[in-house]
Amino acid sequence: MKLTELFLVTIVTERILRDDLVDLIRDNGGKGYTITDVEGEGSRGTRVSDFEGKNVKIETVVSREVGNKIIDQIAEHYFENYAVIVYANPVKVVRGDKYI
Amino acid sequence: MKLTELFLVTIVTERILRDDLVDLIRDNGGKGYTITDVEGEGSRGTRVSDFEGKNVKIETVVSREVGNKIIDQIAEHYFENYAVIVYANPVKVVRGDKYI
Amino acid sequence: MKLTELFLVTIVTERILRDDLVDLIRDNGGKGYTITDVEGEGSRGTRVSDFEGKNVKIETVVSREVGNKIIDQIAEHYFENYAVIVYANPVKVVRGDKYI
Repeated sequence: MKLTELFLVTIVTERILRDDLVDLIRDNGGKGYTITDVEGEGSRGTRVSDFEGKNVKIETVVSREVGNKIIDQIAEHYFENYAVIVYANPVKVVRGDKYI
Repeated sequence: MKLTELFLVTIVTERILRDDLVDLIRDNGGKGYTITDVEGEGSRGTRVSDFEGKNVKIETVVSREVGNKIIDQIAEHYFENYAVIVYANPVKVVRGDKYI
Repeated sequence: MKLTELFLVTIVTERILRDDLVDLIRDNGGKGYTITDVEGEGSRGTRVSDFEGKNVKIETVVSREVGNKIIDQIAEHYFENYAVIVYANPVKVVRGDKYI
């Protein structure tokens, strides 16, 4: 089975940002996403969250180019005022051409 | 602590396939799995899902050989008619000999 | 956007260990964590779990040094008597200096 190297971008943030980030992923070329309800604590921004503990994890498999765009847009719009963690790692994807 | 390099295979698909895929993992040599209820959208197959939005993520840590078998079997049996995304990445596992 | 290479340490274990492992992460220098309720089966220790099927996944993004400490502590205190799987993989993190 042919595997394509793409990037898994993972975002963990406040649930209130869920729909905004799904739109952001789509607007920057992401073809899909997976959302998981999670709990957690971590380094935070300046805003005291009303939703401490209740977070959402959003994952998307994208090309490096789309991943960089998504990361830059999240940094620009959400890092100052929201609790957001974003990381990426390479993954080998089956039928990877569907995600580019 | 000695770490063994193995592969984390991640499958995101319709919930209706959950039990079939757990059997498939076991039948091909997987020693365990983790299941998470998730939501999502993505590239789909030809079947219009009655379960749009409600998906399941199945993760299994396996050898490269077992991982390839699992991926090939999923591709052969489910890619045509179901929404399935499959990707893999190397992970360093503690007590990795238990997973081979 | 500058990315820092750190390690994503993933622990899947019995729910009863949740609070203990959060403390262990913090005590060894972890700055945050994400918790997901999951189900699963896998290689187990000597203890027959009363919570079979109900597990928790704990993820933390840390430096290699902190990751090694966390892994060693989990191995020392929990491997003998609990069902625990621990693995790690490198991730590129945005604002990674917040996690060190």
